[in-house]
Amino acid sequence: MNAQLENRVDPAIRAFLESWLLAVKAADVDAIASHYATDIVAFDAIIQLQFKGVEAYMKHWQKCLSMCTNMVFDIHELGVESSGDVAFGHYLAWCGGTDEKGETNASWMRASFGLRREQGKWKVAHEHFSAPFDVETGKAIFDAKP
Amino acid sequence: MNAQLENRVDPAIRAFLESWLLAVKAADVDAIASHYATDIVAFDAIIQLQFKGVEAYMKHWQKCLSMCTNMVFDIHELGVESSGDVAFGHYLAWCGGTDEKGETNASWMRASFGLRREQGKWKVAHEHFSAPFDVETGKAIFDAKP
Repeated sequence: MNAQLENRVDPAIRAFLESWLLAVKAADVDAIASHYATDIVAFDAIIQLQFKGVEAYMKHWQKCLSMCTNMVFDIHELGVESSGDVAFGHYLAWCGGTDEKGETNASWMRASFGLRREQGKWKVAHEHFSAPFDVETGKAIFDAKP
Repeated sequence: MNAQLENRVDPAIRAFLESWLLAVKAADVDAIASHYATDIVAFDAIIQLQFKGVEAYMKHWQKCLSMCTNMVFDIHELGVESSGDVAFGHYLAWCGGTDEKGETNASWMRASFGLRREQGKWKVAHEHFSAPFDVETGKAIFDAKP
């Protein structure tokens, strides 16, 4: 994470996001799931329009992790705003993996999230990952830069 | 908007979103802009990775509106959570326009937003629109259904 922005984020939310990021980098589905609200509504970058509920979303996570070797996932330009038991945030993710030839393919993706504090613990109640697309070709843009 | 979900949303936020939607349907750039925080960070579905600040974002809105005749934009499955001066939400947008032959082309898009209350008035501080893409073809998926 960008250290400068990180310092502006509420410490409990920063710790929560760091814990989520560790779980993602470890490709640990159960640990990732523990960060999500049971009733999460998620919009992922690929395959399907939406995922409702942590069970459906974790099946998708499992599929995504199986498609990706040595995952790269770095958080940049993080912004978070919180009040009481609700927060939202956004960041750019440098996201990719290593292909059969051992080459790393990564690109910039956009991420948004909505957090809800349940019994004193932050949970992700909404998550949205995407790449923009080109209007002419209809293709996702993987070489866009911040 | 879906009346059932609408009723669960904080009335001031519901009124704010309805006002934004009217501005969008009227293709009124100044009215749309009045709903955004000066320092908005926006991730739109097309062209570019991100837009920082209302001025840059409204230039993009202007371009999008000029590409689109008789815009269709309907909000479905709206969910909003708020606490104090912060809120986040998400919905599916049935989004499109009319082409040269007079045919309406629309598809399901995903939308997320983060709201901040400034001097008693809600403003959009973050917005994210996207379509998912197909991993094999790299193409945006326009026929996905909720």
